[in-house]
Amino acid sequence: MTKHIQKGTYYAVIFTAKQSDNTEGYAEMTKKMTELSKNQKGFIGIESVQENKNEITVSYWETMEDIRAWSMNERHIEAKDGGKDKWYDSFTVRICEIKREYAFGK
Amino acid sequence: MTKHIQKGTYYAVIFTAKQSDNTEGYAEMTKKMTELSKNQKGFIGIESVQENKNEITVSYWETMEDIRAWSMNERHIEAKDGGKDKWYDSFTVRICEIKREYAFGK
Repeated sequence: MTKHIQKGTYYAVIFTAKQSDNTEGYAEMTKKMTELSKNQKGFIGIESVQENKNEITVSYWETMEDIRAWSMNERHIEAKDGGKDKWYDSFTVRICEIKREYAFGK
Repeated sequence: MTKHIQKGTYYAVIFTAKQSDNTEGYAEMTKKMTELSKNQKGFIGIESVQENKNEITVSYWETMEDIRAWSMNERHIEAKDGGKDKWYDSFTVRICEIKREYAFGK
């Protein structure tokens, strides 16, 4: 079965990263940030996969303004600073508008 | 160091999936499809992370038309049919326009 989803325009933040060897506090931070993001205005969902030191996390948001507001959240800024200092060797953040989508499920 | 990347508008295909227990031919297919996509017009890059049965793969393209052309490629269609028959319990494909991005690297 292929489902076609209609939700109107929404947005994604694609975070692709190479983690560092420093994992101290990392799991706790990601858990906290996931919980915190879920309570933000406009949050739709989040998906994350990690393998060795590679991470891709995609979060979905109702508007660009919601993404901006979350990026300015004080605890989120602290976590991002920690990410640069400790947990990541490199990362890229891409903010996107979803133009089209389809889903398949058994 | 935070790098700001300027590339003009480009596009991403976000593929998020739950893999099935049937892995026969899966690694060979993904390798073939990655190689094939790299030779497509408008291909910019691809990133993929797998963990347990979860997969997120993001590919980047110059135009929506390039994405459409790749989606219509005969060998790609065969691979997608195999994905539905065998390798995936569920997946979602989202086609996005990148509005903004930034990168960090040490």
